[in-house]
Amino acid sequence: MTQDSKSGTSRRAFLRGTLAAGTAVAGAGMARAAGPDPLITEVQPWAQGLGDGVDATPYGLPIEFESDVIRRNVPWLTADPISSINFTPIHALDGTITPQGCAFERHHSGAIELAKPDYRLMVNGLVEKPLVFTYADLERFPRENHVYFCECAANTGMEWAGAQLNGAQFTHGMIHNMEYTGVSLRTLLEEAGADLSGDKWVYVEGADASSNGRSIPMEKALDDVLVAFKANGEALRKEHGYPVRLVVPGWEGNMWVKWLRRIEVMDGPVESREETSKYTDVMEDGSARKWTWVMDAKSVVTSPSPQSPITHGAGPLVITGLAWSGHGRITRVDVSKDGGMTWETARLAREGENKALTRFYLDTEWDGSEMLLQSRAMDETGYVQPTKAQLREVRGLNSVYHNNCIQTWHVKENGEAENVEVS
Amino acid sequence: MTQDSKSGTSRRAFLRGTLAAGTAVAGAGMARAAGPDPLITEVQPWAQGLGDGVDATPYGLPIEFESDVIRRNVPWLTADPISSINFTPIHALDGTITPQGCAFERHHSGAIELAKPDYRLMVNGLVEKPLVFTYADLERFPRENHVYFCECAANTGMEWAGAQLNGAQFTHGMIHNMEYTGVSLRTLLEEAGADLSGDKWVYVEGADASSNGRSIPMEKALDDVLVAFKANGEALRKEHGYPVRLVVPGWEGNMWVKWLRRIEVMDGPVESREETSKYTDVMEDGSARKWTWVMDAKSVVTSPSPQSPITHGAGPLVITGLAWSGHGRITRVDVSKDGGMTWETARLAREGENKALTRFYLDTEWDGSEMLLQSRAMDETGYVQPTKAQLREVRGLNSVYHNNCIQTWHVKENGEAENVEVS
Repeated sequence: MTQDSKSGTSRRAFLRGTLAAGTAVAGAGMARAAGPDPLITEVQPWAQGLGDGVDATPYGLPIEFESDVIRRNVPWLTADPISSINFTPIHALDGTITPQGCAFERHHSGAIELAKPDYRLMVNGLVEKPLVFTYADLERFPRENHVYFCECAANTGMEWAGAQLNGAQFTHGMIHNMEYTGVSLRTLLEEAGADLSGDKWVYVEGADASSNGRSIPMEKALDDVLVAFKANGEALRKEHGYPVRLVVPGWEGNMWVKWLRRIEVMDGPVESREETSKYTDVMEDGSARKWTWVMDAKSVVTSPSPQSPITHGAGPLVITGLAWSGHGRITRVDVSKDGGMTWETARLAREGENKALTRFYLDTEWDGSEMLLQSRAMDETGYVQPTKAQLREVRGLNSVYHNNCIQTWHVKENGEAENVEVS
Repeated sequence: MTQDSKSGTSRRAFLRGTLAAGTAVAGAGMARAAGPDPLITEVQPWAQGLGDGVDATPYGLPIEFESDVIRRNVPWLTADPISSINFTPIHALDGTITPQGCAFERHHSGAIELAKPDYRLMVNGLVEKPLVFTYADLERFPRENHVYFCECAANTGMEWAGAQLNGAQFTHGMIHNMEYTGVSLRTLLEEAGADLSGDKWVYVEGADASSNGRSIPMEKALDDVLVAFKANGEALRKEHGYPVRLVVPGWEGNMWVKWLRRIEVMDGPVESREETSKYTDVMEDGSARKWTWVMDAKSVVTSPSPQSPITHGAGPLVITGLAWSGHGRITRVDVSKDGGMTWETARLAREGENKALTRFYLDTEWDGSEMLLQSRAMDETGYVQPTKAQLREVRGLNSVYHNNCIQTWHVKENGEAENVEVS
């Protein structure tokens, strides 16, 4: 046994100036009178009586004090909430798992209700035997579990021309990260005797009125795509495609077809609405770049940020955020306090996982002066997250999708933060 | 690109007898008429109109069809639900993460409501400087993220004398597995200048009326104990100790003190109610074994099981379950179909994680005859989960806690399963 700190750094300096010894401390900007703290010296109401019994909430919800940690819509973004998006409250979360209840959702014709007994999944096209599976059939194939992030290609899409939305939830919240359980798409294609040649494509289609459909090249279909029915251990939520959705690791969320009803093996791509007029990248000259499926390495500081200001004065400050890459593992995240002039390497909470969110921390001392906070992700391929200027140099200003640029928060002396642009 | 199955085994045999090609299949015991399946050939109601918009549920809940996947109480277990327990629906979950909403809870005086501004954590006793932290203070220390299981020492405690409760939820559901975020206890002890000598103890105490308190030897306190404020990314739920609980990896759940209010560094253990009259193991001769903190390696088949019967006939069957060990990683799980006479090694969904749930699968062919299903876990220390007979040989029949014996489900020809004893 050793008395040395695991981190190798003494944090005893924390005490000086921020914590008072032997009495209640003045934390979190609360002014408190000197003398005994009644929250310690008096028996409080919650210690004088009984709380809720175990049958109070058979399926629990967050405590009322956390009622602001919810998905939020931006009403002006779309004409109607039926074909719209809401955002994960990433500014208020920590760790890497996203609870299903606050994981962003995106629909093209609303979240439908499809009961398991009514569910059918067809595999057709270039197959020896067209097949139809019930939900119960799917449960009889070997299952896999993997944690993956799902990011909408439009995440950060409002920010191309300049700083727009004041909060990490709104600029970067079209992302979630869950443990999926399902059957590999490869297994179902093999079951149907599909033509698995490298020049073939798979068209996947949802059961909702929008019939959201996307073409996937056979190589990806055989690699790591899952036909999933659980997320974070339990059934998918209605808004995430109950009872069955596709999971296309590292690739744009629109391809993760919900309420999956059909898988057609084809000679080529369909070039559907969702892969032509939408989800393609319009360049400076008006031409469009398509088949930009992979979500490149990206990161964002989630706290401090506009919705998560610093509520204490100078002294110890934890800067934290998320990083991810559709190409594999995050290997390093750097943080800048001066808008990218100097960088410090952040601590990864755990080793980066393949195509999953990675939490980073920078444990620092804040001197109370303003900061231009940025983070910059690197992945195992050596890719480095670009600045806005670098991205614009290649793509111009006409794009909506695949904006993975470095984000800047202007943190003021009073601890408040604002979305600004440092190109 | 290869056309070989990743698993190395062709699953094409699946087709024969269970799936009909080119038309809807008779799955999950549903009898259906021959001919076109209207669920495919007719446009269904959910494809004729719009579903819910994205503002329907700012914090979502499971779909109504999953309303049976909830925590359940066993009313006769305790006199009152205030000092009681409910059980995780492990029979219906997959993967390893437990959603907070259905993670078991155990209270001694009910689940209290304690708002963050009212929260205080005192560190006192053998320390240079007694300290009091607010919630906001805790957020300024370096944070860690880890996935750990939490198991009540009484899990499976009803089963000592024979098969009692008919369902994995009730026999083994006092367990959950979440990604915790918090500050290491070591950090706070160092901050207070605590005496960290190996012969010292730490007494941890909750803020509820029961003042649930436990003594922890210093070596464990300095090893991996967390003062946690988030689980699965979001705030702890009320029933899991909001805003702050202790996480004592691999050790019995009762030590994971909720609504943590005090950490006292002491010369010896307190020998509180919860570590003398409760949570000690009464042996055959009436003497009690105490300080049995670690939860030994254990496993259970979650499906098929009494609450998760086989709903299809003979043919491909996925047998799945959970394994865990308080000593570290699960390295292997074996499954027996004949009550322990012969064993097959199951597939681990992912490599075993330190003190976390591990999901196992046995992808098999069921011949339709009855089975006596068992699972047997092994951990990285070489420990092998014992049979009931082996456990009773050492401990007798007077125990309540720490029953980690091999469980048997009798699966009948009709697919139903029952809790039975094969010692």
